[in-house]
Amino acid sequence: MADYSKGSAYIDGQLVPIAEAKISLLDWGFLHSDATYDVVHVWDGKFFRLDDHLQRFYSGMDKLRMSIPYSQEQVQEILSDCVKATGLRESYVEIITTRGTPQPGSRDPRLCSNKFFAFAIPFVWITQPDQGLHLVISETQRIPAASVDPVVKNYHWLDLVKGQFEAYDKGGETAALVDAEGNIMEGPGFNIFAIKDSVITTPANGVLQGVTRKTAMQLAHEHGYEMIEGTLTADLLRSAEEVFATSTAGGIMAISKIDGKDVGNGGIGPITKTLQEAYWALHEHPDYAIDIDYSS
Amino acid sequence: MADYSKGSAYIDGQLVPIAEAKISLLDWGFLHSDATYDVVHVWDGKFFRLDDHLQRFYSGMDKLRMSIPYSQEQVQEILSDCVKATGLRESYVEIITTRGTPQPGSRDPRLCSNKFFAFAIPFVWITQPDQGLHLVISETQRIPAASVDPVVKNYHWLDLVKGQFEAYDKGGETAALVDAEGNIMEGPGFNIFAIKDSVITTPANGVLQGVTRKTAMQLAHEHGYEMIEGTLTADLLRSAEEVFATSTAGGIMAISKIDGKDVGNGGIGPITKTLQEAYWALHEHPDYAIDIDYSS
Repeated sequence: MADYSKGSAYIDGQLVPIAEAKISLLDWGFLHSDATYDVVHVWDGKFFRLDDHLQRFYSGMDKLRMSIPYSQEQVQEILSDCVKATGLRESYVEIITTRGTPQPGSRDPRLCSNKFFAFAIPFVWITQPDQGLHLVISETQRIPAASVDPVVKNYHWLDLVKGQFEAYDKGGETAALVDAEGNIMEGPGFNIFAIKDSVITTPANGVLQGVTRKTAMQLAHEHGYEMIEGTLTADLLRSAEEVFATSTAGGIMAISKIDGKDVGNGGIGPITKTLQEAYWALHEHPDYAIDIDYSS
Repeated sequence: MADYSKGSAYIDGQLVPIAEAKISLLDWGFLHSDATYDVVHVWDGKFFRLDDHLQRFYSGMDKLRMSIPYSQEQVQEILSDCVKATGLRESYVEIITTRGTPQPGSRDPRLCSNKFFAFAIPFVWITQPDQGLHLVISETQRIPAASVDPVVKNYHWLDLVKGQFEAYDKGGETAALVDAEGNIMEGPGFNIFAIKDSVITTPANGVLQGVTRKTAMQLAHEHGYEMIEGTLTADLLRSAEEVFATSTAGGIMAISKIDGKDVGNGGIGPITKTLQEAYWALHEHPDYAIDIDYSS
């Protein structure tokens, strides 16, 4: 029997073990990174905010002029099947639409049949909730929205990867990229929030409209914290009492060090901790959680 | 026997028909577009300027901190084998290095084993030498060098694809992307040159240092034309007497129309034609051509 314990994938209408999950070398999703994707996680046997992820995914396809022959309900079913096959109660689940393979000799993206892929693998953490990250403010600029719309979740990561290497070189773990004016944008796979005088600030534009970002903002509002979507300067980040990152791959994660210096007392600050606990508690809420039936 | 007539690929040390050429869905070359590549063409059974392409490829890997276990000589041998298998006398040959597949649960690119791929398919033309292209000046900005170094040939094409769709919408065939100031940068897979008062201008920075671009500049110099690597404004492009594009996928190609208006008399201008003929003639030159032995 096929071994799905390391993950499963849905490719060309079939469920396969993750080790067999492959894409044509000629697909423009690879050769032009002409693709959009989304990642949802499964926690304690439940999808979290799957509808939000699916809506963003379909909106991204629209903007790239792509389409797939599946409804949101059908994609949900495919994803359930992927997770069920693995038996994983905690899982990192990715959906992808690529431009597809060009007609022989053609360079016209309109002639491609778009391709849909999905896979489920064990949960991937940027960092565990009880650990703080060491962030380095990178000199690399995040690809601007005038070039690539960050609202369409995309694989254009060479700037983020460059930032990661800069961070490693400086003894850090991950990086914050900046805009042309040096303001903080986002990191490799996460949005960034700074807290000063109990006011929480996160960049408004030029960044992914993360589902975890949205959840953090919603929880901050419910807990009565003031939240500014605006400009996050490097100075504000450096002088913040608390800093955290948000991502489907880890939730709300404390940033405990910036450029080698402790943020606050170098631990996980009280507001970050409050939001973190509220975030994981929300995973039981019927408005946001969809149970996976592992029995059938 | 395997059918290599539609193309061949070299993957995991093996030659396979192009239809079987696949990459893992989990390779960061796909999921992060964390890859560099190069394309060389074979014309009349000979590689053209293979050394230049290989040098750029290895330099790109260095900049991305990637490496492969093959010397330039070994890659040349692999590419010869790929082309030989297809029997193609004219071929589009691509080499790729990806970051590779992450360690389970890890997000650290330093822990990946980089992967090498190569493939040879029938020649792909952006346009035939006797045809002129209809170019549209796009509003989309080319990803700036402060984000992604364009000298490292990469698959970050969503901006270029967006430009292509803009061009189609406006009745054109392809697009020129701009920088933040509206100056002309490059198109999907090609560099751009404008000729006015016998002076040839091409953007100096923020664009791929194309091998065909370099060849065109060299030929222009040999033919006594003045060449400026500098700022190519949209006004200069629109008022040029001749405009051409350069790419390994087509060589030196006339742009006969910009935003619906004829360039010059709408045909292929005399300087473009001279350079085009010199370009194809150079493919016989022993300094630039490497014969492929199809017999063994």
